[in-house]
Amino acid sequence: MEMLFKYNWQVREEWFQWCNQLSHEELAKPRTGGVGSILHTLVHIIDAEQSWINGLNGKPEYHYDYKNYQTLDEIIQLSEQCHCDVNEFVEAWTSELESKKFYEFTYGEVMRHVIAHEIHHIGQLSIWARELGKKPVSANLIRRGLAT
Amino acid sequence: MEMLFKYNWQVREEWFQWCNQLSHEELAKPRTGGVGSILHTLVHIIDAEQSWINGLNGKPEYHYDYKNYQTLDEIIQLSEQCHCDVNEFVEAWTSELESKKFYEFTYGEVMRHVIAHEIHHIGQLSIWARELGKKPVSANLIRRGLAT
Repeated sequence: MEMLFKYNWQVREEWFQWCNQLSHEELAKPRTGGVGSILHTLVHIIDAEQSWINGLNGKPEYHYDYKNYQTLDEIIQLSEQCHCDVNEFVEAWTSELESKKFYEFTYGEVMRHVIAHEIHHIGQLSIWARELGKKPVSANLIRRGLAT
Repeated sequence: MEMLFKYNWQVREEWFQWCNQLSHEELAKPRTGGVGSILHTLVHIIDAEQSWINGLNGKPEYHYDYKNYQTLDEIIQLSEQCHCDVNEFVEAWTSELESKKFYEFTYGEVMRHVIAHEIHHIGQLSIWARELGKKPVSANLIRRGLAT
């Protein structure tokens, strides 16, 4: 489980770096599909991850509003702020939690939903990148030093 | 591991169905990003999965050429043809295989690379779908009956 989360976090960092080559206008510009802009996608990924994982961790549901995180720097800070709790939960994961119930879901289902959610939205960013004439971040999981 | 493969296979089937609403010309039309068209993306996903998994299973590397699978029906048949061996390997997966070496990779790394590869490319299809004015297949992993 941990390897796929670490993959997502590494890829997310690389997209933050990638974003530096674009103007704020390009990053915030409405685009077709997904949640509508590069910056909004990044906030959405961070927010979905923290809300599900904190939920599994017994914390009340809370959502970060895109309106309050409109610059790349604010979004990177939000990602770092949310990462501690998420990382702690992921690192403490054991297979005994697999079938524990969370509403109508299992913990195992929710963990994989969060993983797939980020990869899916990153795939969307890669199309917008090419439409902007830019090479996207590599989506390869191999050759990232993630093997345990 | 199995849940994420089953998720990909379910989503892939739904994209096959989704494709039926488009003409062959739209499906084969070159698009910006990814591997270049909806049909080519589907062949690429099927081929990457079979080549990695058959590799882990000790079989020689073989790749299917997009030129030979140009219609949706041929691609669906290719997916079904490759599925038996892939499914057998995924169902027989045990955590003891995690750190077994495959060239410079581990088996665990390759399995997750294959999972992430399909989700990433499906994310790309979802942008092209919206650009065509169509609602994409849901990428949600929850509510698919995948919990063990």
